[in-house]
Amino acid sequence: MNTSKLKLEVCLTPALLHLHDIAESIVVVIDIFRATTSICFGIENGVKAIIPVGTIFECASYRNSGFLLAAERNGEIVEGFHFGNSPFAYTPQKVNGKTIVLTTTNGTRAIHEAKQAHTVAIGSFLNLDALCDWLKAENRNICLLCSGWKGKTNLEDTLFAGAVIEQLKEAGYTLDDAGVLASDLYSLAKDDLRKYLQKSSHTERLQKLNIEEDIIFCLGANTTSSIPILKDGKLVKLDIEATFPANV
Amino acid sequence: MNTSKLKLEVCLTPALLHLHDIAESIVVVIDIFRATTSICFGIENGVKAIIPVGTIFECASYRNSGFLLAAERNGEIVEGFHFGNSPFAYTPQKVNGKTIVLTTTNGTRAIHEAKQAHTVAIGSFLNLDALCDWLKAENRNICLLCSGWKGKTNLEDTLFAGAVIEQLKEAGYTLDDAGVLASDLYSLAKDDLRKYLQKSSHTERLQKLNIEEDIIFCLGANTTSSIPILKDGKLVKLDIEATFPANV
Repeated sequence: MNTSKLKLEVCLTPALLHLHDIAESIVVVIDIFRATTSICFGIENGVKAIIPVGTIFECASYRNSGFLLAAERNGEIVEGFHFGNSPFAYTPQKVNGKTIVLTTTNGTRAIHEAKQAHTVAIGSFLNLDALCDWLKAENRNICLLCSGWKGKTNLEDTLFAGAVIEQLKEAGYTLDDAGVLASDLYSLAKDDLRKYLQKSSHTERLQKLNIEEDIIFCLGANTTSSIPILKDGKLVKLDIEATFPANV
Repeated sequence: MNTSKLKLEVCLTPALLHLHDIAESIVVVIDIFRATTSICFGIENGVKAIIPVGTIFECASYRNSGFLLAAERNGEIVEGFHFGNSPFAYTPQKVNGKTIVLTTTNGTRAIHEAKQAHTVAIGSFLNLDALCDWLKAENRNICLLCSGWKGKTNLEDTLFAGAVIEQLKEAGYTLDDAGVLASDLYSLAKDDLRKYLQKSSHTERLQKLNIEEDIIFCLGANTTSSIPILKDGKLVKLDIEATFPANV
């Protein structure tokens, strides 16, 4: 595989995505706490499809569809919805075979803004290895899109971008400066991600939400192998066998 | 001084400045290669005032004013102008007592966008210590505004933000996640900034411009002590004695 001229870029927040030419790229959407972690876990556990929507109103409009409705704002479940974005709501018992309509503070906005990409995929520590193996095989420009927090950079999404770069950099992609930054930050933090994230300005916010179990879960690497991708406006499980025919 | 509730934020590019509430803050504009370095050097060397303007056209409109006209785009002097943004153009012989009209690819845009701040100051490695001493004494929220490269993050401006944070963090400011990131990046790079910056995606661009001497100069810490601030649309030397009356 010749990736010597392929680009591996990091977009530190959706507010900067317009500066990236993504028409021919794979965009990996990252929202570690907790939207993309929950999406990966849900798809692994048999969710048929997740429909990401921008607003609570749009989510509510599906109330007679038979779908599960998930809405989170500022880290909490919006009143009246089935659940928010805690991964523990996405167990096989609850979601197998279901379609979920999802709106979150940051992650679903990022997915929406990435729609112009060649392919939109969903990344989290849960599917890190599977995602990286697939990205390497695709031989295409990559943009790692951090959802951040209300338009600003956050540490956990940047660290995950760094974890992807660590696996991909031997393949010879050209990194941008945000990629160098994410990669070096990850090298500093990787031995104890939880401890490193105590530095985050969001630590207090997350503590107030009482989601320590969620955080530990979200930082656990390679507990799943499914790659959610956006197809006709819905997140579905990538058919790896169709993608790697030579391996069949 | 009680700074325990003061914020020290890093804005990684001007494209994100609208997310920061700067009305009561000092915004430090950073464009290490090379606009803010040259501004610091010029002000130290007796420039009366620097007028930052957004466009080449606006800069050219001053042609009968008797001012020096400096215009840079993509790292090069724009044809027909007196000079661009190499600090070596800002020696005492050339600039003492003069007014300069300046437009650059990134730095003057950042200055323009920061105008709503309580105070706009100019930072570079040249005036690092003087700037930090002044910031500590001001007892005010701070936003370190990296000019970046055409809206995207760059390493050198982020590193300088980290250098400022290293001096200020003992004073007890609350850091945002971009601040943590800048600070940790600086701790990795500070022993040899020049070597670290070889990693930058802009290395090739800078090499093509043949400005190695400029780069070394721009990374030299504490060669000046003036702090340029924006006053009535012009960058002038801060009157430190007026700011620190107790020291007089």
